[in-house]
Amino acid sequence: MSVRDQATAAQAAAKGLRALPGARRSKLLRGLADALLDAATRETLLAANEADMADAERAEAKGELAPALVKRLALTPAKLDGLADGLRQLADMPELVNERELRRELDEGLVLERVRCPLGLLGVVFEARPDAVPQITGLALKSGNAVLLKGGHEATRSNQAMVEVIHRVLAAHDVEPAAVGLLVDRSEFQALLDQDDLVDLVIARGSSAFVRMVRDNTRIPVMGHAEGLCHVYLHAPVDPEMAARVVVDAKCDYPAACNAVETLLWHPDAGAALDACITALREQDVELRGCEATRARHADMKSATDEDWDTEYTAKILSIRQVADLDAALAHIAAHGSKHTEAILTDDPDAAEAFLAGVDAASTFHNASTRFADGYRYGLGAEVGISTGKLHARGPVGVEGLLTYRWLLRGNGQIAGDYGPGKKAFTHRDLE
Amino acid sequence: MSVRDQATAAQAAAKGLRALPGARRSKLLRGLADALLDAATRETLLAANEADMADAERAEAKGELAPALVKRLALTPAKLDGLADGLRQLADMPELVNERELRRELDEGLVLERVRCPLGLLGVVFEARPDAVPQITGLALKSGNAVLLKGGHEATRSNQAMVEVIHRVLAAHDVEPAAVGLLVDRSEFQALLDQDDLVDLVIARGSSAFVRMVRDNTRIPVMGHAEGLCHVYLHAPVDPEMAARVVVDAKCDYPAACNAVETLLWHPDAGAALDACITALREQDVELRGCEATRARHADMKSATDEDWDTEYTAKILSIRQVADLDAALAHIAAHGSKHTEAILTDDPDAAEAFLAGVDAASTFHNASTRFADGYRYGLGAEVGISTGKLHARGPVGVEGLLTYRWLLRGNGQIAGDYGPGKKAFTHRDLE
Repeated sequence: MSVRDQATAAQAAAKGLRALPGARRSKLLRGLADALLDAATRETLLAANEADMADAERAEAKGELAPALVKRLALTPAKLDGLADGLRQLADMPELVNERELRRELDEGLVLERVRCPLGLLGVVFEARPDAVPQITGLALKSGNAVLLKGGHEATRSNQAMVEVIHRVLAAHDVEPAAVGLLVDRSEFQALLDQDDLVDLVIARGSSAFVRMVRDNTRIPVMGHAEGLCHVYLHAPVDPEMAARVVVDAKCDYPAACNAVETLLWHPDAGAALDACITALREQDVELRGCEATRARHADMKSATDEDWDTEYTAKILSIRQVADLDAALAHIAAHGSKHTEAILTDDPDAAEAFLAGVDAASTFHNASTRFADGYRYGLGAEVGISTGKLHARGPVGVEGLLTYRWLLRGNGQIAGDYGPGKKAFTHRDLE
Repeated sequence: MSVRDQATAAQAAAKGLRALPGARRSKLLRGLADALLDAATRETLLAANEADMADAERAEAKGELAPALVKRLALTPAKLDGLADGLRQLADMPELVNERELRRELDEGLVLERVRCPLGLLGVVFEARPDAVPQITGLALKSGNAVLLKGGHEATRSNQAMVEVIHRVLAAHDVEPAAVGLLVDRSEFQALLDQDDLVDLVIARGSSAFVRMVRDNTRIPVMGHAEGLCHVYLHAPVDPEMAARVVVDAKCDYPAACNAVETLLWHPDAGAALDACITALREQDVELRGCEATRARHADMKSATDEDWDTEYTAKILSIRQVADLDAALAHIAAHGSKHTEAILTDDPDAAEAFLAGVDAASTFHNASTRFADGYRYGLGAEVGISTGKLHARGPVGVEGLLTYRWLLRGNGQIAGDYGPGKKAFTHRDLE
């Protein structure tokens, strides 16, 4: 089936998803969770994944595939448990489709409502990571959207096996299986991006370069993080032990993540906290690159160049810069940050609030690791991705970010020409 | 000053607007309303507008400018009264900037908030209509956004006089006047669209062709209606008198508006209502174009071609088509509508609800004219425009559509590595 045909079928199936009562939607999600816990199904999924892994390991041995990528490809019983758990959480969350957000009388017998509704058809493109398939499917179904998935080539067999399970569960719950489609060939990737009359939103998961490439190749709106260039700023007084713990987590918990820290800023009075951070980061084999003032205190590190302030390392590398004061920290972040996640570490509550008010980013933290910027951690059930755009959804995107709204007006024959200066007036009275 | 410099200054001024307490924001809007009511200021504004009008009337006489455009250009004391009234309504509306939408404990001492915030810097491009300047400025200030305005060439003197008034009021309220900038030259139009690192959203007001042209010439997200191809569907039983009144309003109240009806659909059982509509439309000199079944009943009208179903006339022309049933009406709307505004006229409540549920459009109405799709009529205070996109804001866009949100997290040194399977669990408890 061509991508065009798949998209057309998915869009048609979306109507059924939109109309599904909330209780049936939850039952469907629980059915999917049950399938992932079923012994025979798990065997099939793990066997498909083993075949993908064997190919990937051969490619890794030849140096054609990065070890990190191979690691991410692996499905395990523990991962399947986690995925089933996530689907159950989604099932338990309140139903948002068709939720009324506003009810307003415009005049007697003329009542306006604003209700939430699905976007329609999502296109999701992601790199090798078969657990993304049930995660994204769960979010799409919870929000009443149909979805076309285009995963990484390395995970083809795993993704196919997963989508077969999903199709079985959809059919068992009387939902058109075409609501969830899988694209496999590389050529289908561009074909998906060309369906701007059928696909309402493309969600791009992967590196910044990948997201940019997607954005440059489609007229469909794209949700994704253009870059994750996050800062941690040390402001005195600050507990050195706390600072070291948070900075190590922000850099080392998952260095390739978009919410990892890339640059550490420090106030001249926060030298002790800086020292503690540097000691702890060195224990984790993090490569450090410092400005002149930083190197005056810690000579044994590379000089940071101007380029470092604009680099998302996605590796165990950290640049360090002294800033004169909080305003200078804000100015550095405004000039070099990607509006993703910024954090201040300090025991001074006024400085913390000034930082929270002064930063323009999707997420701004006080005394917490940048790694918390995540849909699961925020309690959104899961996330389809993190958005660094300002429109529609910002930061981690869960179910709400996949919904839009529509206006409904019920009258008894009112016409606009009857209202205006010297004519009838609107009552504009919010109801309930 | 170059457009780049104006955008840089406006972005800097946006920080002040964002931080402005709600009471001062309301005072500023009332100050602007007062200025529009001040006798000396009015004299200046009306004199500038008279000069624009004189030029426009000369151009009209030479056939270089459409009469409708000249009419829209006129500022009158009554229009200024209405603008002042609109600004006062905005001042009275609740303050939304910095409003907390969510407060959630992730764990003991780790509290997440989602707060509303301005988008930053708006670029608004619109055709000749000087009343757009105070309207858009009011919405921008209420939502804490800076704005660069690019109006039509014909209204240059009126727009300049209006922005001078605005600058004086801003300065009197200790707000940086650069927060509201005016671009005048045609060359500055493309320069504005090029500032994708400074401008967060472009709002395009004007014809569909104008909005498309803007969209094709910028990387900045554009809000605007791509097209307003709206339908009214007559479903039996339906009161012929009501149907005629609503359809005439939907077509004739303002035929050039995006929420005017372009195609009338009718069920075979709704012939009496159709007849009443046709009689009433003919009295208003509306040109009618019918399908075969329509012409079998009313021979004296032009045949509609396939092209008619996809045409936004923006004139007193209406195409008419018979559809077999409600599903066929929904199918016609899905195939030819622009997701703007769709209406059903019927006394059958079940058919009405099926229509409201089945249409995918920004606005869907039962027994009301499509002309109600408007920010002022919806009680949004005013509108910057109507969006036919599904993302961010849909339908008439008021203050809320000019806001986004950001996430704030306050902790005491928590790290992400401490949470997960076999480690600490999140509490995810919504507070308040």
